Amino acid sequence: MLVFTTAAELRAHAEASRGAGRRLGLVPTMGALHDGHIQLVRAAATQCDEVVASIFVNPTQFNNPDDLRLYPRLPEQDTALLAAAGCTVLFMPSVEEVYPQPTVLRFDFGELERVMEGAHRPGHFNGVATVVSKLFHLSRPHVAYFGQKDFQQVAVVRQLIADLSFDLELVVYPTVREADGLAMSSRNRRLSPEARAVAPLLYQVLAQAASGVREGVGPAEVQARAQAALAQEPQFTPEYFEVADAQTLQPLTAYGPGRGVVLCVAAHLGGVRLIDNVVV
Amino acid sequence: MLVFTTAAELRAHAEASRGAGRRLGLVPTMGALHDGHIQLVRAAATQCDEVVASIFVNPTQFNNPDDLRLYPRLPEQDTALLAAAGCTVLFMPSVEEVYPQPTVLRFDFGELERVMEGAHRPGHFNGVATVVSKLFHLSRPHVAYFGQKDFQQVAVVRQLIADLSFDLELVVYPTVREADGLAMSSRNRRLSPEARAVAPLLYQVLAQAASGVREGVGPAEVQARAQAALAQEPQFTPEYFEVADAQTLQPLTAYGPGRGVVLCVAAHLGGVRLIDNVVV
Repeated sequence: MLVFTTAAELRAHAEASRGAGRRLGLVPTMGALHDGHIQLVRAAATQCDEVVASIFVNPTQFNNPDDLRLYPRLPEQDTALLAAAGCTVLFMPSVEEVYPQPTVLRFDFGELERVMEGAHRPGHFNGVATVVSKLFHLSRPHVAYFGQKDFQQVAVVRQLIADLSFDLELVVYPTVREADGLAMSSRNRRLSPEARAVAPLLYQVLAQAASGVREGVGPAEVQARAQAALAQEPQFTPEYFEVADAQTLQPLTAYGPGRGVVLCVAAHLGGVRLIDNVVV
Repeated sequence: MLVFTTAAELRAHAEASRGAGRRLGLVPTMGALHDGHIQLVRAAATQCDEVVASIFVNPTQFNNPDDLRLYPRLPEQDTALLAAAGCTVLFMPSVEEVYPQPTVLRFDFGELERVMEGAHRPGHFNGVATVVSKLFHLSRPHVAYFGQKDFQQVAVVRQLIADLSFDLELVVYPTVREADGLAMSSRNRRLSPEARAVAPLLYQVLAQAASGVREGVGPAEVQARAQAALAQEPQFTPEYFEVADAQTLQPLTAYGPGRGVVLCVAAHLGGVRLIDNVVV
């Protein structure tokens, strides 16, 4: 596995690889890898000739300085995991390498980011779109792999690709869960044993709500029941629970034929902010 | 000269050309070509193995529907001029080909677009950045050629390239002028003989103002004199005359050592909006 820390190395390698007719897959990550990431790397290794994984804790997508400061960083362990999973190129740049000067342009994704993560984390999706654009330009992938866990992020990246005519395919893999249902997340490492013990409630609430949607319980009632269930556990401070259109991400007031529904939740648990979602 | 009307053709050609190690130059235009455009194509032909010119009157950068409707369109004449100048690929897509669905994302370039063209043409630079991003992704140039005539556009494109790490070089050529000093522009075709006769005043005022800057006349006084000179000709309706920092494009209140100055003007003349600039 090649390890690059400079943009110039990655660019030169991508150009040579594409010139040689090799198919490139990109798995952008912020490190502290878990099975969700590794699933993406394994898929890319099956489908592509080269797998570029990036590890970069992107400061411009963090609205909360503590969240940025406390984000887990495990470069040695990550490197070993990536090599074992079939990654051929690891890109691990410094902040200065990715942002040699402060960024001036700002992205706005309209209604798509006025809800959920976009509403609760101002500037988050501008940071995401900026760093994803940079990584796409530096690594020139044929395919980019993302996890469904960050559902709204996937919607924003899909819009970015369409609106700027990026020449690549977006592939999304389902959320990988622990045996008790907790969605895998790098931030789970920061949970205390007490918090970890109650964390699976987030998915239980989503699964109950999904049953409700399938049974035709209205969106407002599904939301109210989920919020009540979350309120049962005092360790949780819920941020939002939304019953939304799976395409537009806008809150639903009613279900419609052929209209996908996504249930999205965000909650704080022992100082850690967790998100999860289920598509019905 | 190859002529492509679909994004897929251009993408495939660009990929094959880069794979073959050929250096690609891009000259994005809105057609109705003049010597300013042709200068860029000739330069690209000297410096690159392939020259892609695009002709696309981009609707998203027009804030004024009449300006869009009346924008000159001369595809046959343009095609002959491009072939003679050394263009190897002409990309002439439909609006539906470039925008298969409405764009959701919006670019904001902050202070850079709060002045001059950005201030007077709301949404203009979002449209420019969107279409330029698309053209960069479709044609994958090593070098992109722009004219200094659209000074603020060049600044915005330079920022776009830097902020999103586009892997290409931006080359800017000086404004080409008629014998009487009028900056070449596709919109000049729409000037009546009476308007054309007084149009060179725009450059004369800029040249006088540039002399003033060199002689140390303060920015406010330079601006006031230029505005007074323009007001002498009743056919002109001036929009702005700015004495600005050539890097930031912000209005200057004083000159500073090593700080470039750009003089920018916009005025309406017989229903046609003209812009010009001089760097001191």
